[in-house]
Amino acid sequence: MSSHPPIQDLADRLARAQAATRAHEVDALLVSPGPDLRYLTGYDAIPLERLTCLVVPAEGEPSIVVPFLEKPAAQASPIGDLGLEVLTWGETDDPYGLVASLLPSRGRAALDNHMWAEKVLRLRDAMPGVDQLLAGQVLRELRVRKTPDEVEALRRAGAAIDRVHARVHEWLRPGRTEAEVGKDIADAILAEGHVTVDFVIVASGPNGASPHHEVSDRVIEAGDPVVVDIGGTMPDGYCSDETRTYSVGEPPAEFAEYYAVLLAAQQAACEHVRPGVSCESVDAAARQVIADAGYGEYFIHRTGHGIGLETHEEPYIVSGNTELLEPGMAFSIEPGIYLPGKHGARIEDIVVCGESSGERVNLRPRELVVL
Amino acid sequence: MSSHPPIQDLADRLARAQAATRAHEVDALLVSPGPDLRYLTGYDAIPLERLTCLVVPAEGEPSIVVPFLEKPAAQASPIGDLGLEVLTWGETDDPYGLVASLLPSRGRAALDNHMWAEKVLRLRDAMPGVDQLLAGQVLRELRVRKTPDEVEALRRAGAAIDRVHARVHEWLRPGRTEAEVGKDIADAILAEGHVTVDFVIVASGPNGASPHHEVSDRVIEAGDPVVVDIGGTMPDGYCSDETRTYSVGEPPAEFAEYYAVLLAAQQAACEHVRPGVSCESVDAAARQVIADAGYGEYFIHRTGHGIGLETHEEPYIVSGNTELLEPGMAFSIEPGIYLPGKHGARIEDIVVCGESSGERVNLRPRELVVL
Repeated sequence: MSSHPPIQDLADRLARAQAATRAHEVDALLVSPGPDLRYLTGYDAIPLERLTCLVVPAEGEPSIVVPFLEKPAAQASPIGDLGLEVLTWGETDDPYGLVASLLPSRGRAALDNHMWAEKVLRLRDAMPGVDQLLAGQVLRELRVRKTPDEVEALRRAGAAIDRVHARVHEWLRPGRTEAEVGKDIADAILAEGHVTVDFVIVASGPNGASPHHEVSDRVIEAGDPVVVDIGGTMPDGYCSDETRTYSVGEPPAEFAEYYAVLLAAQQAACEHVRPGVSCESVDAAARQVIADAGYGEYFIHRTGHGIGLETHEEPYIVSGNTELLEPGMAFSIEPGIYLPGKHGARIEDIVVCGESSGERVNLRPRELVVL
Repeated sequence: MSSHPPIQDLADRLARAQAATRAHEVDALLVSPGPDLRYLTGYDAIPLERLTCLVVPAEGEPSIVVPFLEKPAAQASPIGDLGLEVLTWGETDDPYGLVASLLPSRGRAALDNHMWAEKVLRLRDAMPGVDQLLAGQVLRELRVRKTPDEVEALRRAGAAIDRVHARVHEWLRPGRTEAEVGKDIADAILAEGHVTVDFVIVASGPNGASPHHEVSDRVIEAGDPVVVDIGGTMPDGYCSDETRTYSVGEPPAEFAEYYAVLLAAQQAACEHVRPGVSCESVDAAARQVIADAGYGEYFIHRTGHGIGLETHEEPYIVSGNTELLEPGMAFSIEPGIYLPGKHGARIEDIVVCGESSGERVNLRPRELVVL
């Protein structure tokens, strides 16, 4: 079961979204089920083929178009308490024409970034005079700075995934497959308070050199380094994401050497976080340590991604992103070193930018754990 | 862990998709992570903000654009054995320009129906001379008729969710909340062989009148009818979806009366299934029985939806869909009767159109179960 913020907070978000819509000279936001809809209304609807679409016009009252059979579910969600007008369509009606009737025939409509192509193109065809752009450009200024309540939600998610990592030693041992270990971890992600398991990476030995390896039938061997990167979604919609690298018995000397470099790099990036520094400078803080130690070519991805109602959202901690950090921004710091064919390591915490420094919401030890 | 069809089957699908692309006078299919990508290549990639995009040109070899860090995961998937060219982009490169470089500067590109708006609009901007249409129009002829292997996969999914319904009596009793019962069901969906829980509806008493109610804190009472509509995804990607309506103790007389009507309607629609009849006639077969009994206004949704790698896909069993059934088409038959403020009932099986009749893959008794 999902939970949602107080109705007054949702009403405030809708009002701010409408103001942002005007400021961006957009005529309406069109938002289908997904994180933007949940953020703005608390309605945690499943994306399906039938069109559900929140319409936030630059002027006038927001409304929501829903399939007739979804009306009771929508009304039972915060949509009902928000007093939004609910416009329904029957199984043989055209919902795209209904949305079009709510907008001017010429202008600009901003679509939520996750809207499915089948809805994007049908809206395009129903409103040929309306230019389509992305709602992310309008809503980012709301979503990218977390409120104290949202930061608290990220702390709860961080504590929940910490509890799972605290139990990894029970399951990770030679002779078991990555998939077997992954199953135990997935069960624990749910048992520790998440409502969904979003990803489980158990990357042992050479699989650790693939950053987005998931699990396989590979049998874990003594001496294997194992990257464990796991996350889920809490009942309030906020996501967890934490990586620790374990060693099943004594690791190769080469591994221990670069793990120490990685630990220093992750620490340097976390210490660099404060308001006014750029996203790319946080990336550089980690990258410099790794490059200075001669491993630069083996750190093959950005340092991090924002997190909130989505596991990956703005801001991205990547070279070229000159955006400046502000209090409330929340993102991962997860440098990695990957030696193809051999092994790899990654250390990841979620960090919230505070008034003067960063706060990690993941608190498990970062030193290499030898099991 | 996901499984996939034999490589030769995937190669055949890619070849057929390319032929369909030519037949539809489309220059290329562009397919991001989701059911179409899994169908065509067996690559079960998670949809994320970084662009992964299969490019199937009308002429020439297909290729796939992936983020550099995803290359090992892509190569470890059937993509590697299929011998597809893997084109990578680094964290600060423009992947949309890379995709555009693979297409003619003018023409028609078909995008998978679930592609996110942020990718649709960035591809649009990167290829201003290319018209965008939906890949569903091209791929439907492949995906809508299930092969014998796919039908077998749907039978396995049907048997798995049957095993969950067989245990509902253990959990559904007065004094428990819908959410508590739903949690037990979700655990069983995983325990019986699914890899994800896709939805759990436990709609008791008046909540049963909302077809897409999920669960709530409502405490189940003696005499409540309870609609239990549940489904998940199997390791091979095929989905289950089955509804049974239970009664916790003796139900109201009015309920028992319309439940008998509903049972006859569901049976009539299942018996109507055979090659050459229209989708809308299957809908009508159920609807007629319900209307004749005076409950027509309380059957407020279509009779069914196709199912396969998606819970909802073509063909839709709905008024106005004149498409004719063919062997291998698979869909739900799930009429319902909903009395607002009182209670509701739905009976759902997945049915595969065979050579001369329909085959249900869900075999649990359909008569009202009084617990």
